[in-house]
Amino acid sequence: MEGFPGLLVGLDYAAVAVFAATGALAAARRGHDIVTFGFFAAVTGVGGGTLRDLLIGAPVFWVGRPTYLVVCFAAALAVWAFGRGRGRERVLTWLDAVGMAAYAVVGALKAVSLGAPGLSAMVMGVLTATFGGVLRDVLAEEPSVLLRRELYVTAALVGAGLFVALQLLGVSPWPASLAGFAVALAMRAGAILFGWSLPPFKGRGLEAE
Amino acid sequence: MEGFPGLLVGLDYAAVAVFAATGALAAARRGHDIVTFGFFAAVTGVGGGTLRDLLIGAPVFWVGRPTYLVVCFAAALAVWAFGRGRGRERVLTWLDAVGMAAYAVVGALKAVSLGAPGLSAMVMGVLTATFGGVLRDVLAEEPSVLLRRELYVTAALVGAGLFVALQLLGVSPWPASLAGFAVALAMRAGAILFGWSLPPFKGRGLEAE
Amino acid sequence: MEGFPGLLVGLDYAAVAVFAATGALAAARRGHDIVTFGFFAAVTGVGGGTLRDLLIGAPVFWVGRPTYLVVCFAAALAVWAFGRGRGRERVLTWLDAVGMAAYAVVGALKAVSLGAPGLSAMVMGVLTATFGGVLRDVLAEEPSVLLRRELYVTAALVGAGLFVALQLLGVSPWPASLAGFAVALAMRAGAILFGWSLPPFKGRGLEAE
Repeated sequence: MEGFPGLLVGLDYAAVAVFAATGALAAARRGHDIVTFGFFAAVTGVGGGTLRDLLIGAPVFWVGRPTYLVVCFAAALAVWAFGRGRGRERVLTWLDAVGMAAYAVVGALKAVSLGAPGLSAMVMGVLTATFGGVLRDVLAEEPSVLLRRELYVTAALVGAGLFVALQLLGVSPWPASLAGFAVALAMRAGAILFGWSLPPFKGRGLEAE
Repeated sequence: MEGFPGLLVGLDYAAVAVFAATGALAAARRGHDIVTFGFFAAVTGVGGGTLRDLLIGAPVFWVGRPTYLVVCFAAALAVWAFGRGRGRERVLTWLDAVGMAAYAVVGALKAVSLGAPGLSAMVMGVLTATFGGVLRDVLAEEPSVLLRRELYVTAALVGAGLFVALQLLGVSPWPASLAGFAVALAMRAGAILFGWSLPPFKGRGLEAE
Repeated sequence: MEGFPGLLVGLDYAAVAVFAATGALAAARRGHDIVTFGFFAAVTGVGGGTLRDLLIGAPVFWVGRPTYLVVCFAAALAVWAFGRGRGRERVLTWLDAVGMAAYAVVGALKAVSLGAPGLSAMVMGVLTATFGGVLRDVLAEEPSVLLRRELYVTAALVGAGLFVALQLLGVSPWPASLAGFAVALAMRAGAILFGWSLPPFKGRGLEAE
């Protein structure tokens, strides 16, 4: 990825680390051992980007550059060592929001740079931002992030969509990235703080329960 | 996919739309918002074909041609708008049967056209026809289509297998496709109407429950 | 994979057969039909190697050589025919241990032979050894092998890691493979016989339940 802006490389590593930490925390909640911590951290940290690379036909980003795995395992060790205090789950919710916003833009940017159409690039941003968490939740047998009521996928979608739209309008990558990142983060922040959500489907197709 | 018969392109889009609608319906049953409708619709609609393309090493079909995504999102909107009446679940069961039968043939045809051996092509037909539904059920935390008792995977298998066998015997694509499609649909229809199923395993290996 | 040692080809097929049998057994426990037996057998038998090949960008091993599928379906038929006696679950636990140990080495070897860095190759060994079982458990809606307390992922990790380390130290493939295989098998044997496990996480991050 020639010309990939330096800030985005930083955001990329930060997003991997943060998602890896949320994976390790899922392992911690169930009292797993350190190897399972590492497994969950790696799957959550690189899962979204792995799916993106497979779909767009790019070499999977971490296979040739295992620094990403080192970051995941370091995050797992950090959660193992320090993850006992109170309030850390709250910190991680916020870091997860930062990671989601970063990945929505990074995922869309990589797809755009490889020639994907705008709509596909937007979807790649959403998948990169959410799929790691989906894998984590399926493996840990917890309710998936997709089934949450407050904004999550929507924030990734709007952030990635704004980035792609600005790119198509000729805005240069830096401001477009920052705008997409800021909007996704702001929407997720509203969801965390105020429970922002979209109206749910209310129809007769609902389960009787 | 040069020379892909026009009918099959139509069946391809129809299958995507129908599976996408079943995905949106799964979201509707749980009262999700419109973005989750779209997410479920896209995953279910293109999931099977995505797995097929990854396995046979072809470019993933919808990435370069996002019309498929538009179809998925349109199906999600349609379910959101009209999915409240009664009887629609029944309509969708039948459309799902059509989609399954179409995908079994389309999946096998694409694999054959890329040089896959017969047995592999048959398996690709089955995966294309069933994997979207499996993803939908895993994400929605519902019992998987694989765990149903009445014929489903079997219908896809026989349809794809018949298509591949006829191709190997020198039958031209059109009649081979129609035969495979018709047999898969007839078997699934029998399952829906009369509960057709294969005999279950009855042995001492069963769980004591 | 030129020069792939003959013993490892044998271990490769043996691992596919054994994992396929564990997949069929999962279908047997729930009283499924023969087609579902075959589906579970194939997914479990080739799932780990499929993920490995997708991640390292190699052609998926069984698509061009469907002998692997035949092995899976034969294993499913064998479980259907003979899987009723007592003690077979115990036999399969041990065969599964052999398959896991073989796959940890085979997976890492293939990654190394395609030029993957050491850490990535080790991770490929772990994924090859464990992912088929994860898919089986997710599809069968059983608690995942990842959530077991006794050593499993760890055994695969140490076996694959030892193989990679010996390779990097210049040891030739045969002794390196046998050492990795033996250590992984021994650790898993200890887990089966004596309940060996790593210490679990004990912290305030645990769920209150």
